[in-house]
Amino acid sequence: MRLLTLSLCVGAVVALWPIPRNIDTGTTLLKLAPSFDITLVDIDTPPQDLLDAIARTKSYLATDNLQRLVPDRGADDAPRLLNAPSLPSLQLSLSGPVRPIKDEAILPLGTRQERYSLTVPADGTHALLTAQSTLGLFRGLTTFSQLWYQSEATTYAWQTPVNIVDDEPAFPYRGFMLDTARNFFPVPDIKRTLDAMSWVKLNTFHWHVVDSQSFPLHVPAFPDLASNGAYSPAEIYSPSDVQDIVDYAGVSPWQRGIDVLLEIDTPGHTAVLATTHPEHIACLDASPWSDYANEPPAGQLRIASPDTTNFTATLIKEIAAMVPRNSYFSTGGDEVNVNCYLRDAETSEELAKRGVGIEEVLGEFVQSVHEVLREGGKTPVVWEEMVLAHANVGLGKDTLVMVWISSQHAAAVAAKGFRIVHAPSDYFYLDCGAGEWLGNNHKGNSWCDPFKTWQKAYTFDPYAGLGEAQRELVLGGQQLLWTEQADPANLDSIVWPRAASAAEVFWTGHTLPDGTPRAQGVGKALPRLHDLRYRMAGEV
Amino acid sequence: MRLLTLSLCVGAVVALWPIPRNIDTGTTLLKLAPSFDITLVDIDTPPQDLLDAIARTKSYLATDNLQRLVPDRGADDAPRLLNAPSLPSLQLSLSGPVRPIKDEAILPLGTRQERYSLTVPADGTHALLTAQSTLGLFRGLTTFSQLWYQSEATTYAWQTPVNIVDDEPAFPYRGFMLDTARNFFPVPDIKRTLDAMSWVKLNTFHWHVVDSQSFPLHVPAFPDLASNGAYSPAEIYSPSDVQDIVDYAGVSPWQRGIDVLLEIDTPGHTAVLATTHPEHIACLDASPWSDYANEPPAGQLRIASPDTTNFTATLIKEIAAMVPRNSYFSTGGDEVNVNCYLRDAETSEELAKRGVGIEEVLGEFVQSVHEVLREGGKTPVVWEEMVLAHANVGLGKDTLVMVWISSQHAAAVAAKGFRIVHAPSDYFYLDCGAGEWLGNNHKGNSWCDPFKTWQKAYTFDPYAGLGEAQRELVLGGQQLLWTEQADPANLDSIVWPRAASAAEVFWTGHTLPDGTPRAQGVGKALPRLHDLRYRMAGEV
Repeated sequence: MRLLTLSLCVGAVVALWPIPRNIDTGTTLLKLAPSFDITLVDIDTPPQDLLDAIARTKSYLATDNLQRLVPDRGADDAPRLLNAPSLPSLQLSLSGPVRPIKDEAILPLGTRQERYSLTVPADGTHALLTAQSTLGLFRGLTTFSQLWYQSEATTYAWQTPVNIVDDEPAFPYRGFMLDTARNFFPVPDIKRTLDAMSWVKLNTFHWHVVDSQSFPLHVPAFPDLASNGAYSPAEIYSPSDVQDIVDYAGVSPWQRGIDVLLEIDTPGHTAVLATTHPEHIACLDASPWSDYANEPPAGQLRIASPDTTNFTATLIKEIAAMVPRNSYFSTGGDEVNVNCYLRDAETSEELAKRGVGIEEVLGEFVQSVHEVLREGGKTPVVWEEMVLAHANVGLGKDTLVMVWISSQHAAAVAAKGFRIVHAPSDYFYLDCGAGEWLGNNHKGNSWCDPFKTWQKAYTFDPYAGLGEAQRELVLGGQQLLWTEQADPANLDSIVWPRAASAAEVFWTGHTLPDGTPRAQGVGKALPRLHDLRYRMAGEV
Repeated sequence: MRLLTLSLCVGAVVALWPIPRNIDTGTTLLKLAPSFDITLVDIDTPPQDLLDAIARTKSYLATDNLQRLVPDRGADDAPRLLNAPSLPSLQLSLSGPVRPIKDEAILPLGTRQERYSLTVPADGTHALLTAQSTLGLFRGLTTFSQLWYQSEATTYAWQTPVNIVDDEPAFPYRGFMLDTARNFFPVPDIKRTLDAMSWVKLNTFHWHVVDSQSFPLHVPAFPDLASNGAYSPAEIYSPSDVQDIVDYAGVSPWQRGIDVLLEIDTPGHTAVLATTHPEHIACLDASPWSDYANEPPAGQLRIASPDTTNFTATLIKEIAAMVPRNSYFSTGGDEVNVNCYLRDAETSEELAKRGVGIEEVLGEFVQSVHEVLREGGKTPVVWEEMVLAHANVGLGKDTLVMVWISSQHAAAVAAKGFRIVHAPSDYFYLDCGAGEWLGNNHKGNSWCDPFKTWQKAYTFDPYAGLGEAQRELVLGGQQLLWTEQADPANLDSIVWPRAASAAEVFWTGHTLPDGTPRAQGVGKALPRLHDLRYRMAGEV
């Protein structure tokens, strides 16, 4: 990274990530006054979480030690700083309702208000941050934080005045997905990830909490699932852990402006349930696994069995109740292996008895499960197969559909009128290209080669292949970490700064702010990405 | 990684890495007795570093907490362990000279004695480790350490008896290269890397300490080079840091059986010297850099200038004196850009005056520098261009040549009769495939795509393309980390466990122990690699 300290890459950019959609900057140095404060000009009874966000911002400014990543690390700025003006304060003004950030952060997509405007004058007068919501103020505080550098004992900005007008996300859904089933991640690792997400204005933590390999979630009504299905007693999320993460993410004083989208993948990816309920699982550990599943171990919920459907609906209901205030919940639906059902005696018998086919019972199953979600006030989310591979599932049109197999499948989902979250493996899968985890390919090739560079992700076009009228169906997108080959030891380095790419794509939009294609922007983005990375790493 | 806890990958292998070349194992469980000890049977006055290695082994056995990576984490073993025999001690027997490991570890390649034999009976009688050198005993202690697992409070092996006869490396040079110039790595990061290297029996730390981007080495005779050329005062290796690393690696009580091969890359990759000595550097910061260097910033030593040659020889002499006991020293020699010299006025003038060409002065330069190394008792090491791109440099036949551009170049180096260290970018470059660090390729492609998986490295054939008679020229090889995009934050995860691949290739040989090609071995190797990785990560 240090090579970028050389002249070739130093451009006239502020180190904001994502880059605001509308920004003007100057060339004046501005110090942060020792007495610098953040004040509320028109909020008489501020919510506690806004006060906490302000306190965190001030604390960050006091401890951030990023020097400018230029040859002398900003030493040339020092003499000019002696007589530079000082910023006395940042004033916050709210023109909308005074509600906690935690309430704003979990509103339905499309109704969350994240817009803000920020003016930092170069003459030593007050800076001003305005928004129509406390969530907007929170986004603006994040932007403000990223303006500042360190030179010896001085905190300063070097591109003032800064004028940002009506910066707001181009897309309402900007997420990151973590799989905690292939490997377990302790709560502090997840919180650290939420911190980093918040720093780049991501707003949705998609938590793929369980899978065929392990069930690390303690569900009070089904305690055996975790005690039998987790890797170990130490590798289980308790209800209070879940509450802790949800709170940390978005709905408590220590919020990060992030909503949590919990996923319980069904009916595939459920082999682990057999450790407690073998009666609900078809083709458990069938061999060769590749005939029955996309990866070992095989095992799927017996969707033809009314008992299994009831069990699943109840399970989903209980888990959804663990995240009562969050609006979205995924029931998965990827990689359903039809062959598994065709070769399962119990399923075949049930189908014959009722005179129906796999696709019919799959529809009944999904609809039953989604119904309990809606009764709990949640909107269902599914993977693309529920629309494209199983066209007759009968999804409600409220359902969000995640496109993952290929970015080219988005058009087909849009053609059916569903709202889209982009999660394509060919752009956004962070695990790709690092070798096949099963180890049986001697070249190490894996299905989603090559490695997805930050540049590749950065150039993603959310509207590619869509007609003008279909654009409104795109809610946003996310990068994803499947964890067959990741655990806390490499979490940070495999995710960051790469996952910042999608954060900028879905905040700033399908083109760069000046209208040029994203592919032309990687060179300009790099110095900003370096600043972001060094701030995240906490380095000088 | 956890998926491997499933049945598909559990094979009958001990978790040794590298796998010994000659091993038999049984199926009996054996506990480590609470009073287990390691004793010397025939060494009256053991060297301190052997005693320290024994103490470290005992400490490791007491703190290693690796459970078996099988579905129940070895819980099934517990009842059988109740009545299992216990190993009372490991006896060490030395049939050769009683010399410190530190002296054995720096002997010339080909004369180091790393062979050992190890017998661990299953009946509760003593285990025996024999070797002809203390270095061999050290290698055997490492093997012994990897036999053991944890089940509750019991340390146990599960495949005894173990009988390893005359295990020894197929190749004398087994290394790892770290670039500390593109990014700086504090001493503790290097020591942690040395620990991991030792664990897989790597024996050479190739330290690419300086480069065009920074000069983080304090040379007492040339203090300005670091004070002007390091990234910051905190990012400099002092002479005592160098001594500390060399000691930790191989020549002190806290040795790891590792030799240090220091590299000062010349005449290219030296732009940073211009911060102190601009008179010695041609085409500094010339633009576009791509006309003058393989990566920015451009700048090469003025090899036509007698002053520059003298300066370089003196500098190399002083730096070589900082590692007085180590036998090898690299002068680099990669990516010399002839165009840079042709367009440099001072160089052109000098060549015209003397009526000679670039290749002639390059030969004089290299020979002068190598001469001071030989006077200091060191053998020179160079990159392949010094043989293949500049055929008339006139290298001494003692010189070791590192093949890096392509594995297919080894044959050409061998054809000229030079000894080879394999370091090919197409197998062993750990930085490849993660995106172009300059950021200007919007797909993120970089010159040495794709990512080099552990499987790819594992299947490297050290004899590919070589005739039978040329095989003796192959000294071994190494994986390498260039650090344009690595620093302490991702060091461990980018290097390990991948760098264990070459460790096994060059210990175990060009085929698997049973004679089958390495490409057929990745599936069997994976469970062992998992055990190694979990031990390295210190996880349960």
